Amino acid sequence: MNVLIAGSHGGVGQHITELLAESEHTARAMVRDESQVDEMEEEFGVDVVVADLTEDVSHALTGCDAVIFAAGSSGEDVEGVDRDGAIRLIDEAEKQGAERFVMLSSINADRPEESPEGLQPYLEAKLAADEHLQDSDLTYTIVRPGELTDDPATGRIEAARRVERGRITRADVARTLVAALDVETTHGETFELIEGEEPIEDALEGL
Amino acid sequence: MNVLIAGSHGGVGQHITELLAESEHTARAMVRDESQVDEMEEEFGVDVVVADLTEDVSHALTGCDAVIFAAGSSGEDVEGVDRDGAIRLIDEAEKQGAERFVMLSSINADRPEESPEGLQPYLEAKLAADEHLQDSDLTYTIVRPGELTDDPATGRIEAARRVERGRITRADVARTLVAALDVETTHGETFELIEGEEPIEDALEGL
Repeated sequence: MNVLIAGSHGGVGQHITELLAESEHTARAMVRDESQVDEMEEEFGVDVVVADLTEDVSHALTGCDAVIFAAGSSGEDVEGVDRDGAIRLIDEAEKQGAERFVMLSSINADRPEESPEGLQPYLEAKLAADEHLQDSDLTYTIVRPGELTDDPATGRIEAARRVERGRITRADVARTLVAALDVETTHGETFELIEGEEPIEDALEGL
Repeated sequence: MNVLIAGSHGGVGQHITELLAESEHTARAMVRDESQVDEMEEEFGVDVVVADLTEDVSHALTGCDAVIFAAGSSGEDVEGVDRDGAIRLIDEAEKQGAERFVMLSSINADRPEESPEGLQPYLEAKLAADEHLQDSDLTYTIVRPGELTDDPATGRIEAARRVERGRITRADVARTLVAALDVETTHGETFELIEGEEPIEDALEGL
């Protein structure tokens, strides 16, 4: 599949780009700044497209079969990027006939009211995007990881509708998002994710 | 003690105000908007002071022995309110000789890098405020609750340096913050908080 990675320059996004570059899929890394193009091309050897989630993104999706959404506003524009930017990309993917959409969400995105007030705008934005994706015609997977670390990948996870408090490496989150592209049991599923005992594909097949 | 409640009009703050109004302490409810004064006076029968955490707050602290900080920016101005506003109030409390400062923080405030990028600005702001308080001469207590609910109080908690993923009612968070004023084992302590089995005072005395 031709896979567009939104947020390819981010903490999880770079792991995704590296994995896809080494896979049988064809990766297209989406970045916001022209200045990131050379770096991404040189580091990962993938096609790079410049697109801003707050503007027209149609050119980024041309010919894409799947999207992995790992973009984030870093709190600067949660409504513009985390909510409306994600929704814009979902709508455009649907319009252009993409088959798959894999969303990097967040644990507690489905219950923002249970977080401190300062965290709620981000979680509400993620929830609105997740719900828009669930209501779309795309074959979606929504992944909600716990606390993120920069430790090396373990390749082993726990994935379920609800999990305990726990951590997971950004590298394992990326592996899970990429694996979800091909594992049918993740189609139409929304699940939480932490480090665990099961190999990633086994855990996903058990969903 | 004369206790200033910063953020008295908020989700946890109103519970705190109600508890202090019924206690042997004397409550002074701090609100940002003049329009909230009548409501707070009528509902809780406490003194109300108007002060904005982004401006001079010295008048709010006159004669106060303790502060409970439960204010929050709702994500609109995390640096101005959650970080710098808290630091301003800490500095002023120290300057005016307050004895106690009880801070409502958040689980994961001590590891913002483990949260999605969109949550990090708030958690970083809370961490900066917590660390400023820890470095002050005030006798502090820093409370980091898990997921917040609006269920009725249970009066039973689990409090420890690290707890599992879990929930707690805003009413029980308020009870814990108020109880901490008088329980010496909470002095100089920073702990996480979820619903549990132990009565609040017992749990705090076990810290």
